[in-house]
Amino acid sequence: HDSLHHTCQWGATAPFGAGPLETGMRRLSLDDNDAKARQWFVDETRALGCTEHIVDELGNTFAIRPGRHSGPPTAMGSHLDTQPGPGGRYDGILGVHAGVEALRVMKENNVETHYPVCVVNWTNEEGARFPYSVMASSVWAGLLGKEEAWAIREVPSLATDPSSPKTVKQELKRIGWLGPAKCDYREVPLGAHFELHIEQGPVLEREGKKIGVVLGGQAYRWFTLEIGGQEAHTGATPYANRADALQAAARIIVMSKAKAGEHQGLCSTGVLSLQPGSTNTIPGKVVMSLDIRHQDEAVVGAIEEAIRNEADAIAESEGGCTLSWRLDSDSKAPKFDAACIQAVKDSATEAVGRDKWMELRSGAGHDTFAASTRCPATMIFVPSKGGISHNEKEYTSKEDCAIGAQVLLGAVLRYDAH
Amino acid sequence: HDSLHHTCQWGATAPFGAGPLETGMRRLSLDDNDAKARQWFVDETRALGCTEHIVDELGNTFAIRPGRHSGPPTAMGSHLDTQPGPGGRYDGILGVHAGVEALRVMKENNVETHYPVCVVNWTNEEGARFPYSVMASSVWAGLLGKEEAWAIREVPSLATDPSSPKTVKQELKRIGWLGPAKCDYREVPLGAHFELHIEQGPVLEREGKKIGVVLGGQAYRWFTLEIGGQEAHTGATPYANRADALQAAARIIVMSKAKAGEHQGLCSTGVLSLQPGSTNTIPGKVVMSLDIRHQDEAVVGAIEEAIRNEADAIAESEGGCTLSWRLDSDSKAPKFDAACIQAVKDSATEAVGRDKWMELRSGAGHDTFAASTRCPATMIFVPSKGGISHNEKEYTSKEDCAIGAQVLLGAVLRYDAH
Ligand SMILES: NC(=O)NCCC(=O)O
Ligand SMILES: NC(=O)NCCC(=O)O
Repeated sequence: HDSLHHTCQWGATAPFGAGPLETGMRRLSLDDNDAKARQWFVDETRALGCTEHIVDELGNTFAIRPGRHSGPPTAMGSHLDTQPGPGGRYDGILGVHAGVEALRVMKENNVETHYPVCVVNWTNEEGARFPYSVMASSVWAGLLGKEEAWAIREVPSLATDPSSPKTVKQELKRIGWLGPAKCDYREVPLGAHFELHIEQGPVLEREGKKIGVVLGGQAYRWFTLEIGGQEAHTGATPYANRADALQAAARIIVMSKAKAGEHQGLCSTGVLSLQPGSTNTIPGKVVMSLDIRHQDEAVVGAIEEAIRNEADAIAESEGGCTLSWRLDSDSKAPKFDAACIQAVKDSATEAVGRDKWMELRSGAGHDTFAASTRCPATMIFVPSKGGISHNEKEYTSKEDCAIGAQVLLGAVLRYDAH
Repeated sequence: HDSLHHTCQWGATAPFGAGPLETGMRRLSLDDNDAKARQWFVDETRALGCTEHIVDELGNTFAIRPGRHSGPPTAMGSHLDTQPGPGGRYDGILGVHAGVEALRVMKENNVETHYPVCVVNWTNEEGARFPYSVMASSVWAGLLGKEEAWAIREVPSLATDPSSPKTVKQELKRIGWLGPAKCDYREVPLGAHFELHIEQGPVLEREGKKIGVVLGGQAYRWFTLEIGGQEAHTGATPYANRADALQAAARIIVMSKAKAGEHQGLCSTGVLSLQPGSTNTIPGKVVMSLDIRHQDEAVVGAIEEAIRNEADAIAESEGGCTLSWRLDSDSKAPKFDAACIQAVKDSATEAVGRDKWMELRSGAGHDTFAASTRCPATMIFVPSKGGISHNEKEYTSKEDCAIGAQVLLGAVLRYDAH
């Protein structure tokens, strides 16, 4: 837990309270702070007995501790990047640190595993700076092409130089983490993938549980919508003569949330920029994100369809605004592995007792979603105070972090032995 | 007309067509291109017989041509700054160039006026980069404090360095146009103020007229609204737990347009930015502009009131979002002067005949609105193709520009003689 907050020196934002942990984090994937955290990760895991480090073409880093037999390692993976918000000190970071702590416990107790164990730091899980979440684990799993991922460009509003947003590949090179290994599950196979993560939702806290055994999660699709209108004078242009791209966008934002709600799904817009951005000029162009989620892929498709129909009508009715959609990512609902889940349940029962864990599903996407398509995998959740995440106020107690790490190690050792 | 497009070399944007005039303009107030245009203005007017140039503390520049008697000059004023859009090549620029052409005609014909004549280039009429329209003429008229104007900061999205937006005073200094004269109608009095401008609306073209005799214009108020919500995960946060600042903003944008429409007024949002700007984080903050217009100040107030009531309810209903309003500017409906209007009518009748001009009102605000509070004043409009303005496609034919300049000079000479 101390090491968790130790690495938060790289990217910590201004304090929001008096306590030493009361800062958020802004460590955007492949920025300078990310490079420092990566270096810490390699140094620390080497000191804790990892004899091999594989860095792949997407910067994914596998720190491998040998077992009695060779073979695909059992992995504990998550990510060290954060939201820009500032985001919190736990989302992703906890999972990597818990893996490192597991290595420490194994070293201190001279634990020998049947097969190698590894800790993985996956690149750009957040999809904030480079708008594709669970990015580099998706490349590893063959769900996203390497070249496609390399070409993803920064969101301009988060770019160091908004006039020339950089690509993933440029930034991998710049910070020195464009590795030599192929980013491919066949080249760097994993025996299984376990991930400890904060819940990011309110369920565990509400139910008074310490551990969530994660059975699966939501499917989600990300889109970029571009709406084209006509720049015109706000004072001299009657409503009837307007093609106001922002009016169209506003109506689409309200409508899309409602449509997803009708299907018991979620739809959100987190990115929006407009042009030209002058008080007395009707916006001629709006670019915005759409994030549609539901447990069931088919329902995500149905929501998309419903929004597309209405959105076309809205754009048309706003003076004939144009509307184009680009699908940025499509993440399927994951299927987690029964044996992995059983290992987590057994480990959790041992750590906190049967009545302190519960099964649940993930609202957020995770690297384990991608990993689970290529190896047995599952996740462990610990409570998020107030269900708050992607916010500097994100908080999980020291005790809960420690319990999570203990359950993670227990699950890995059980799985290794099974 | 050639000189009009001559100065468009400073700030011309990428061509949208094959013709030499088919580029827009992006000459933001007090940027480097503005400095070049200002220098041209002084050089040109000096060569055309202006023996005195007054530059005031806001960068307003008065190029004065002596008359037979001393006394407050009759002014022909407008502005050389443009919208960022790119904006057009005529809005404002035409009025200054027409003044310069009037000087040329007077010089070539050895015209002697009773009183001095001057051409004025007013600073930051557009209110785009520094969000206060008709800014420096308002300071001259005592409608806005000098210190207040100096402190106005760039809209971040239009700033050269968005991380440290500059003030009006910083930029006046940087480009060397922070003049020594007091910006005050009592220090630099004008005998009258005439302004030739493109209509920026569709009326003259539709009615087949060449000249608009402008009787007055709309009142308008500009506001900055800040909406505060809570950053949260788009996948893990149920609707019921959200305080989504962008949903609140979107509903306010749609509602405010409708409310103004109910009062036969206009309401528009041209600037909007949000934080943190990540696809999977609910926006925790939105900052946006509101521009409310109507002929009648009282109705502008009524529209504001109606929007405020609804907006509070919307913010509250979006998970208790906070909402704050800041009034940025308040421009009254102007009263133009009967003698000035008569001079324009007589000049227009001479130039194009009685059936080719008409009376109308201005949709946009202009420097003459401010000037008219301190001296007799009026405006002359020429047709805008398709009513399009604040757009690179803004267009007024060479012939119509020339007619406008002729009517302007005729009105000034008539007024000088009256
Ligand atoms: N855990 C987490 O915040 N993941 C980000 C990916 C997403 O769900 O949008
Ligand atoms: N003429 C013109 O575009 N003025 C800008 C001021 C305004 O009307 O917003």
